[in-house]
Amino acid sequence: MILTVTLNTALDITYRVPELRPHATHRVTEALERPGGKGLNVARVLAALGHDTVVTGFAGGVTGTVLRQLLAQLPTAGDGLGDGARPGTVPGGARPGTVPDGTRPGRITDALVPIAGTTRRTIGVVDATTGDTTQLNEPGPVVTTAEWSAFMESYGRLLREASAVALCGSLPPGVPVGTYALLIREAHAAGVPTLLDTSGEPLRRGIAARPHVVKPNAEELAGLTGATDPLRAARDARRRGAHAVAASLGSEGMLAATAHGTWRAAPPRRLTGNPTGAGDAAVAGLLSGLVEELPWPDRLARAVALSAAAVRAPVAGEFDRPVYDEVLSQVEVTEHPTAA
Amino acid sequence: MILTVTLNTALDITYRVPELRPHATHRVTEALERPGGKGLNVARVLAALGHDTVVTGFAGGVTGTVLRQLLAQLPTAGDGLGDGARPGTVPGGARPGTVPDGTRPGRITDALVPIAGTTRRTIGVVDATTGDTTQLNEPGPVVTTAEWSAFMESYGRLLREASAVALCGSLPPGVPVGTYALLIREAHAAGVPTLLDTSGEPLRRGIAARPHVVKPNAEELAGLTGATDPLRAARDARRRGAHAVAASLGSEGMLAATAHGTWRAAPPRRLTGNPTGAGDAAVAGLLSGLVEELPWPDRLARAVALSAAAVRAPVAGEFDRPVYDEVLSQVEVTEHPTAA
Repeated sequence: MILTVTLNTALDITYRVPELRPHATHRVTEALERPGGKGLNVARVLAALGHDTVVTGFAGGVTGTVLRQLLAQLPTAGDGLGDGARPGTVPGGARPGTVPDGTRPGRITDALVPIAGTTRRTIGVVDATTGDTTQLNEPGPVVTTAEWSAFMESYGRLLREASAVALCGSLPPGVPVGTYALLIREAHAAGVPTLLDTSGEPLRRGIAARPHVVKPNAEELAGLTGATDPLRAARDARRRGAHAVAASLGSEGMLAATAHGTWRAAPPRRLTGNPTGAGDAAVAGLLSGLVEELPWPDRLARAVALSAAAVRAPVAGEFDRPVYDEVLSQVEVTEHPTAA
Repeated sequence: MILTVTLNTALDITYRVPELRPHATHRVTEALERPGGKGLNVARVLAALGHDTVVTGFAGGVTGTVLRQLLAQLPTAGDGLGDGARPGTVPGGARPGTVPDGTRPGRITDALVPIAGTTRRTIGVVDATTGDTTQLNEPGPVVTTAEWSAFMESYGRLLREASAVALCGSLPPGVPVGTYALLIREAHAAGVPTLLDTSGEPLRRGIAARPHVVKPNAEELAGLTGATDPLRAARDARRRGAHAVAASLGSEGMLAATAHGTWRAAPPRRLTGNPTGAGDAAVAGLLSGLVEELPWPDRLARAVALSAAAVRAPVAGEFDRPVYDEVLSQVEVTEHPTAA
């Protein structure tokens, strides 16, 4: 199975209003709730690609309960762990689930660690006239030392079953800024490849622990290295420790700087829609390509096609399958001359 | 006791953000939750004035559970009904609690009727730079016929103990637009005076059932009668059936058209702050004045002072006691010549 870690999960609420006007009162015409947080979105896309996935991180309070209920109601939700039949376990002890057979969706298993604090809400207010979204993100609950220990113990156990791990999103209050570096080192020790998708200081510290892949966007990459040229910044990020850097460049596609070469992958056309979750779909593309041992150009093509197909889906964690198939056949991947 | 009815209760969430910008992502710096809905705010102010209050209406789902937990945690929360000691019951069968002795706050008792639907959330986004609030209100749960019957039965029982009833706020989906008229007629039959604070068609229909007091704001009053002059509109609303009309005119105070005369009450100065809950505080002032049998000018002075003191409190349902005492001594009440 593939493990996704979301330390700051969220109950994602989407409100539709005719038009958002600051300092006015709005009647919400539609309110939707779904389990949120980057790693949960990544898991949903991985499951749709046929990969069994286990989600971990923290959940607590009434919003945490609702989040877990919604997670269990997903069509791809698997049985809980601890029932004696761990999903993804293959007889003979081989690392399971590296290549899905394509005939069934993977399962998502909830291995979130309960906490006393209350899982945050994130509210996206969609303006029905323009389709634009205004986002309000709660900071998230404080995690206690005992809860953190429970998580680390669970994480260690889950790594033993994992073919790869994605570390996604912001850190909740009280979790040290060097946490992703710690989780990457644990994964290294367990022989599990890591993908890191975060920003700011947690990204900087995480990169120093030598993750296999980091997936910053252009802004995060510039913030990390100071270089505004994505190619230069990606190569700089590699020098700081990341084995490979796959940077998302919005509607222009992706750029990857790796030990095997440097590529750009561009979608055939610019797609408009809901950009929320496009980055998470790209992570799922990169990670599934990694465990399926695809060459880098194929991983990038998949990530770019999933990203474009996610833009065409109404909510994060989903993608438009016909758009994915169509874009995948048309992504243009070009190799850069390798840096000296 | 005084009964307040809130058919569309809400879990009120307040978010503080540095500055609300449409289509941007905001990190919420502070998130607060409190039991909301106009009748619940009215009850909190009444309790602070020393009146025992029972709140009814509907609550359901996880937000309903949180709302009831927060209600029970209020410093003035009383014991639940059905424990053999109904709050406000006075030996000898007299109508209880008409004049508080001023030495203790009243109790708030939760008599909300459980429903299968989920209580709505209302989100107020406070802009830390300007103090302005952007409001997002969910529509509320659908109430089934069986739930409505349970409410009506409970309402009938509660009326037998009530010295007055306030009917507050919007109607949830599925509740007929003529509902307030029905509730007013029930109260008439039980000999309990009514105050109606709603808007639009529920206000229009409610007025026809001859409530003792309606408390529209200037906009609601104009919408009801078509007259833009508040005095003319208030007298028109009386002709439509309301025994008395007490209209709130924002920072200019209030205007009352009654069978005993017509008055304007103005605060000594314009107070700036959070206007949410100012109208609910005014309702509590009018209703407490009614059960204490104060003359209309005193009721108006209290309502205007409470309203001003609510503007100076951070959340709806609370008021600034020193501001209340100060403004109460300075409200100027002037009588209008009675209409022909």
